[in-house]
Amino acid sequence: MARILKRRSKKVGAAPGTLVHVGEQKAEQVRLMLIDYDAGNYQEKQIDDVADCGGFKDTDTVSWLNVDGLHEVGIIESIGKQFGIHDLVLEDILNTHQRPKVDDCEGYIYVVIRMYKSDQASEGDNGSEQVSFLLGSHFVISFQEMIGDIFDPVRDRIKNTKWRIRKLGADYLLYALIDCIVDHYFVFLEKMGDTIESLQEEVASDPTEDTLRQIHKLKREMMMFRKAVWPVRDLANALVHSESSLIKDETKVYLRDVYDHVAQVIDTAETYREMISGMLDVYLSSISNKMNMVMKVLTIIATIFIPLTFIAGIYGMNFDHMPELHWKWSYPALWGVMITIFVIMVCYFKKKKWL
Amino acid sequence: MARILKRRSKKVGAAPGTLVHVGEQKAEQVRLMLIDYDAGNYQEKQIDDVADCGGFKDTDTVSWLNVDGLHEVGIIESIGKQFGIHDLVLEDILNTHQRPKVDDCEGYIYVVIRMYKSDQASEGDNGSEQVSFLLGSHFVISFQEMIGDIFDPVRDRIKNTKWRIRKLGADYLLYALIDCIVDHYFVFLEKMGDTIESLQEEVASDPTEDTLRQIHKLKREMMMFRKAVWPVRDLANALVHSESSLIKDETKVYLRDVYDHVAQVIDTAETYREMISGMLDVYLSSISNKMNMVMKVLTIIATIFIPLTFIAGIYGMNFDHMPELHWKWSYPALWGVMITIFVIMVCYFKKKKWL
Amino acid sequence: MARILKRRSKKVGAAPGTLVHVGEQKAEQVRLMLIDYDAGNYQEKQIDDVADCGGFKDTDTVSWLNVDGLHEVGIIESIGKQFGIHDLVLEDILNTHQRPKVDDCEGYIYVVIRMYKSDQASEGDNGSEQVSFLLGSHFVISFQEMIGDIFDPVRDRIKNTKWRIRKLGADYLLYALIDCIVDHYFVFLEKMGDTIESLQEEVASDPTEDTLRQIHKLKREMMMFRKAVWPVRDLANALVHSESSLIKDETKVYLRDVYDHVAQVIDTAETYREMISGMLDVYLSSISNKMNMVMKVLTIIATIFIPLTFIAGIYGMNFDHMPELHWKWSYPALWGVMITIFVIMVCYFKKKKWL
Amino acid sequence: MARILKRRSKKVGAAPGTLVHVGEQKAEQVRLMLIDYDAGNYQEKQIDDVADCGGFKDTDTVSWLNVDGLHEVGIIESIGKQFGIHDLVLEDILNTHQRPKVDDCEGYIYVVIRMYKSDQASEGDNGSEQVSFLLGSHFVISFQEMIGDIFDPVRDRIKNTKWRIRKLGADYLLYALIDCIVDHYFVFLEKMGDTIESLQEEVASDPTEDTLRQIHKLKREMMMFRKAVWPVRDLANALVHSESSLIKDETKVYLRDVYDHVAQVIDTAETYREMISGMLDVYLSSISNKMNMVMKVLTIIATIFIPLTFIAGIYGMNFDHMPELHWKWSYPALWGVMITIFVIMVCYFKKKKWL
Amino acid sequence: MARILKRRSKKVGAAPGTLVHVGEQKAEQVRLMLIDYDAGNYQEKQIDDVADCGGFKDTDTVSWLNVDGLHEVGIIESIGKQFGIHDLVLEDILNTHQRPKVDDCEGYIYVVIRMYKSDQASEGDNGSEQVSFLLGSHFVISFQEMIGDIFDPVRDRIKNTKWRIRKLGADYLLYALIDCIVDHYFVFLEKMGDTIESLQEEVASDPTEDTLRQIHKLKREMMMFRKAVWPVRDLANALVHSESSLIKDETKVYLRDVYDHVAQVIDTAETYREMISGMLDVYLSSISNKMNMVMKVLTIIATIFIPLTFIAGIYGMNFDHMPELHWKWSYPALWGVMITIFVIMVCYFKKKKWL
Repeated sequence: MARILKRRSKKVGAAPGTLVHVGEQKAEQVRLMLIDYDAGNYQEKQIDDVADCGGFKDTDTVSWLNVDGLHEVGIIESIGKQFGIHDLVLEDILNTHQRPKVDDCEGYIYVVIRMYKSDQASEGDNGSEQVSFLLGSHFVISFQEMIGDIFDPVRDRIKNTKWRIRKLGADYLLYALIDCIVDHYFVFLEKMGDTIESLQEEVASDPTEDTLRQIHKLKREMMMFRKAVWPVRDLANALVHSESSLIKDETKVYLRDVYDHVAQVIDTAETYREMISGMLDVYLSSISNKMNMVMKVLTIIATIFIPLTFIAGIYGMNFDHMPELHWKWSYPALWGVMITIFVIMVCYFKKKKWL
Repeated sequence: MARILKRRSKKVGAAPGTLVHVGEQKAEQVRLMLIDYDAGNYQEKQIDDVADCGGFKDTDTVSWLNVDGLHEVGIIESIGKQFGIHDLVLEDILNTHQRPKVDDCEGYIYVVIRMYKSDQASEGDNGSEQVSFLLGSHFVISFQEMIGDIFDPVRDRIKNTKWRIRKLGADYLLYALIDCIVDHYFVFLEKMGDTIESLQEEVASDPTEDTLRQIHKLKREMMMFRKAVWPVRDLANALVHSESSLIKDETKVYLRDVYDHVAQVIDTAETYREMISGMLDVYLSSISNKMNMVMKVLTIIATIFIPLTFIAGIYGMNFDHMPELHWKWSYPALWGVMITIFVIMVCYFKKKKWL
Repeated sequence: MARILKRRSKKVGAAPGTLVHVGEQKAEQVRLMLIDYDAGNYQEKQIDDVADCGGFKDTDTVSWLNVDGLHEVGIIESIGKQFGIHDLVLEDILNTHQRPKVDDCEGYIYVVIRMYKSDQASEGDNGSEQVSFLLGSHFVISFQEMIGDIFDPVRDRIKNTKWRIRKLGADYLLYALIDCIVDHYFVFLEKMGDTIESLQEEVASDPTEDTLRQIHKLKREMMMFRKAVWPVRDLANALVHSESSLIKDETKVYLRDVYDHVAQVIDTAETYREMISGMLDVYLSSISNKMNMVMKVLTIIATIFIPLTFIAGIYGMNFDHMPELHWKWSYPALWGVMITIFVIMVCYFKKKKWL
Repeated sequence: MARILKRRSKKVGAAPGTLVHVGEQKAEQVRLMLIDYDAGNYQEKQIDDVADCGGFKDTDTVSWLNVDGLHEVGIIESIGKQFGIHDLVLEDILNTHQRPKVDDCEGYIYVVIRMYKSDQASEGDNGSEQVSFLLGSHFVISFQEMIGDIFDPVRDRIKNTKWRIRKLGADYLLYALIDCIVDHYFVFLEKMGDTIESLQEEVASDPTEDTLRQIHKLKREMMMFRKAVWPVRDLANALVHSESSLIKDETKVYLRDVYDHVAQVIDTAETYREMISGMLDVYLSSISNKMNMVMKVLTIIATIFIPLTFIAGIYGMNFDHMPELHWKWSYPALWGVMITIFVIMVCYFKKKKWL
Repeated sequence: MARILKRRSKKVGAAPGTLVHVGEQKAEQVRLMLIDYDAGNYQEKQIDDVADCGGFKDTDTVSWLNVDGLHEVGIIESIGKQFGIHDLVLEDILNTHQRPKVDDCEGYIYVVIRMYKSDQASEGDNGSEQVSFLLGSHFVISFQEMIGDIFDPVRDRIKNTKWRIRKLGADYLLYALIDCIVDHYFVFLEKMGDTIESLQEEVASDPTEDTLRQIHKLKREMMMFRKAVWPVRDLANALVHSESSLIKDETKVYLRDVYDHVAQVIDTAETYREMISGMLDVYLSSISNKMNMVMKVLTIIATIFIPLTFIAGIYGMNFDHMPELHWKWSYPALWGVMITIFVIMVCYFKKKKWL
């Protein structure tokens, strides 16, 4: 549960705009990486002194500042001052449980979204982290909770002059990063799909209580995923219809594509949700069927042997006057009777399809 | 599951507009068929060199280029260049798991939709494939995953001068193709309906675990179908209200008709969904009823014979002083008592309606 | 199931506007009845030659042409030509599984709706048939699947000069006919209500598997009814807000009334739906309760007699050294012990409220 | 069920505007009460001759005509004529199963709403009746099904000059009456709440089949209440945003207040609905738990005594060569074995928490 | 239930605007605290005579009057008169079961919202109370049901000149108070989350009937919380888009932040709701599993020993002619047979995975 709603307690009652990091510290140290490029130039460097990072703000090249680690509030604050970011936005960046959204502020656009990393998706919420983006006229600043992300394909494309990204502006960079995140939603869904498939077989063939636990774990993960992804549709829509001059019309075609992808992700997620519900039904009816089988075994055994035991009991009585006891053929005759009863019973159960 | 979400992994992180075929290769070879016609002329030929297909672009006749097979990216790319198609659209054509949609691009309209082939519908997703259409002022290009489609009636009508289609433009051809696809949704639903009907009888008369498995299979297929059909309503609506000059007002009357058909398909699909849910309820209560019957049999046998066995047990004891043992009529009297108990029990169960 | 989705197969792939009758042939022969009236005149006659029916098109009197039977495509086609009806509309008239809707065409309005006949409502879909109306400036043409309808009260009012209908136009006639159909929805619901009531009692007192089957039949009928009635609300709304000059403002007040009635029908239908779901719950918990009772009987008998039988078994053993066997009072003492155990058991079950 | 859908049959097929009373006759005699007031004057009288009631129509005082009993169609018709009410409105007044709504007619406003009387609420639908209001520039006419209503507080306020109502117009009177009706929805909900509370305890402690029946009765009543109350929100909204000059802006502030109250009623009703569903779940799992307990008792007894009885059976056999039978200590030794088995069994069940 | 719907009965039928306190008296005495501040000045005092509180109305400083306790209607009325508050608003302040809402009145804005206090949240509704705010151009009046609130952090910030709140107007104060309330929704959700987490473990490991009761209690609390929080989203939205001059544009940025927080609260609440439903499913299937296990134990014991007991019964019969009884090795041979049967049975159950 700790994963679901991180302690916001330290913040409760604080003045709005008070910068407090809400969430676990996931990176040991804050790391700032700057990538600066235009059609002809490319430069990548680690920034050690935060005070330096404002320098690229007014250059004509596209600058991408990536911040890994949010626990050192001072660094975020310093960046905020150099780029003129509103306190409330900085607060949102630091609070790692935001609902995905776009804020169109003066001079920049703020986007917050949840990133699912493919290599850890099975760990539930731990496989995801919050990413915030600030888009200015010539820069994108991204804030991640920890080192390690899914943006390497974008970095590779920036390095290589042949790709369009080198010729286009900061808004296209923002698009490329968001597109990368949405693409990984598909990877997450694929993993989900595989798990659902194997669970479906398990449920049908040999369900145990552990199966049930796994189904519910899956259901919970799906719930978390939905919570993260549904608002992304509105986010993409808001970007497509943004009136900000920061997003050029050429880029909007691409953002529309992101919107379509998110719609597809949501469709698939809904389908999976129904499948998981369906599995619960199968599980329950499978339990019922098992119980039914157990009951049948009991009933067959009891129904055959209880009457026979009764008959044996009769002739175990010690009455002085029981003529049958003294007849010569009564013992074999009794065996005959009992075998007949047995056969009739078995036929009855065969007819009832219990055997 | 592989059917539900094809591996998009090869694409993850790729630059947008990178052309990669996402999906299984379903055709051995890409085949291009061109049908070129106007009121007076008709010509049908296979195109072997992709570079040739741009030739008909500016003619006044209506040209329908049908592409079977999407796995050779180069061919799609070449067509894209000749007709000036946006990279993102080509990407969508190649990704065979698109959500049905319309994109109104400059100079052409892009439509993607899922086709259900009647002869394979029972194979689940395999019975369906994605079809993309590009509508230009004088041409329609259709992209299918494999050879073999449901468009032969349209081809027949084009061949014959008596039909209206020969006198009308490319937009009417697009309509005719979409109409054909929607008509086959009804065929799919009919098959579904037949399966539901036979399952309903099976569930009512003699449900087995296999019945349950079939119900869930049906449910899953219905879910897939819904996912494919729901967006078609928006698609048809978008075409009806399109402001593009590529779709003439005369054709919109027909497109409205398609919209009505899709609405009817969705209505029926929803009804089927409820019916399938209803079958699950019947199944479960039928299992309960069976268990109830098993329990009754056990209870009747046990309740009759356990007390009788007890009585027999009493007179099997070896006490020295048991006066009943020595009376002359006690054995037949005991039989009388036991038969009386038996009769009372049977009457009790008759009254309870257990027998 | 055949009732749910009639074979549209003969139509699949046909050119749009191809006239094919989709549905069962329900009338032996097509019958055309014409009623022609204005404030002062009244005339009713059967038309034998279809070619004649166009004659009344341009008269100032209101003409109502009623067509019973749709299987003779030629007749419908001929009427269509005489009144200038679009091919797609004729196609819809012939396809007896349309979704209720209004089409505002040039020169006429097309309305299709489902009619529930009160005398056959219990037969499921058979009790309903599709009715199409064409409203022109001075005529209404109605198409029914078979002879026999619910419009006699309207015919009676037309015959009698005292009623308003004689003074008003064709739009009022259309309203009167639709109103009549909607009124019969209430009759259908009443019958449903009676069935629900009697089933509710059956479920509460003595539910059998047949009860379950009836509940599901009811549920299915309700589903069909909803499918037929929900779109009628939009239909009524569209008529109220129609901008066509064919519907006068005076008539719209009446159409609003129809809209209110349909809203009421839908409300009641929803209530019934919930009631039917409630019955399923009651049925299932009633089955559970029954099983519970069976189990209790078994448990009581077994719990009382198994220990007693064990005791009897003890003293049926043949050990040489069993001193109790030789005591004089051990037999009656044992009876005392067994009766005590019996009484304790019974008290225990009384306390547990199992008896 | 008769309560749910009153026989509308007498109306089916009748001309629209035909005045027929639909519903049970609930009052013996129609009674007309007139209250006529302005800031300075107050007059209350019973009107015996319907023809008289039109007299107050054009006076400047506010007149409130209350009609108890709807079964005498002539009276309603006469009132309708004197005040110029449309036939369809009169028809709605007489049909006591209207959906709550507002109709903005020329010269007057028609409001129909369902009134829940607090003293009979437990009788289901019988505790409610339909009230229709006609608001003119200087009059309000209210139609009730029977004598006895909840408007006495309003009458008291009118009598007393100190209240605002004396200085305000007919629209404020209408508001006061509707407000009174909505206030009684809260009273109804309170009663519901009490019943839910006591049922919740019953379900948790000692549920019987009667409890289930009561839960379903409650559910049905709630369904009826919802059906009556949901449309009132739209009604209130329509009054607040009415463009009719009959409702003054000063009064709209008050009507907004009614709207807020209805929203609160609906919120609470929804909460109750969920509570009732929750109770059904508790009931079912309580039944399951009971069965579980019964099964445990059976299993404990059978599992302990069946093996012991088998052992006793062994030494009841009559083989000539059974050495144990002749040993001196075998009988007490056997008791030792049996007690040991007994103790082990009991420990096992203790560990399993079945005891 | 008393907590759910407080007796409104005393109000039923009263004239609108009649001031009656609806709810429990939660404070012993009404206490009025005034905080008066601007950038340079700060003053805090208790007001003993209500008549004095109007004095600060027209000063330029921001005045916050906090009223604890609503049961003395006279005090509220007096405040209302001094500040020109509409009767209906005063009525709403006194009725402690309002739906959260904003009313934009002339000269002031009325906000009513539910406050969850973190230290009592587990007490259900008792942990929450209704807070009303009146925002004027230079004042905020807050009405609470009892002494003790969650606003101390706001008070601390006001005391300290370093905070922005000292420089900003009454609208910012209102925002700060609402923000504080919304922050405490997160605290409530956290507690909920902890409870859900511990219940989830309990349900999975060892569910009892008490677990079920707790789940339903949780569900009910969640229902109450939803009822309180859902309307707050609309409330925040209304404030953000308010056209009143009382709310400055600078403050709207902050109110938007509140809106985002409420959206997040609702998302989390919905997730919890689904989790609680999931727990019910787990509980039920866990009960089924337990029953299944009980049945298995019974079946294993009965199935093994009933046939063996039958065999023992056979040789306990007293027939004169039973040759086996006299053979020397028949007793050990019988043991062999019985042990063989036992072993076969155990193997069978092992194979069935019942052991």
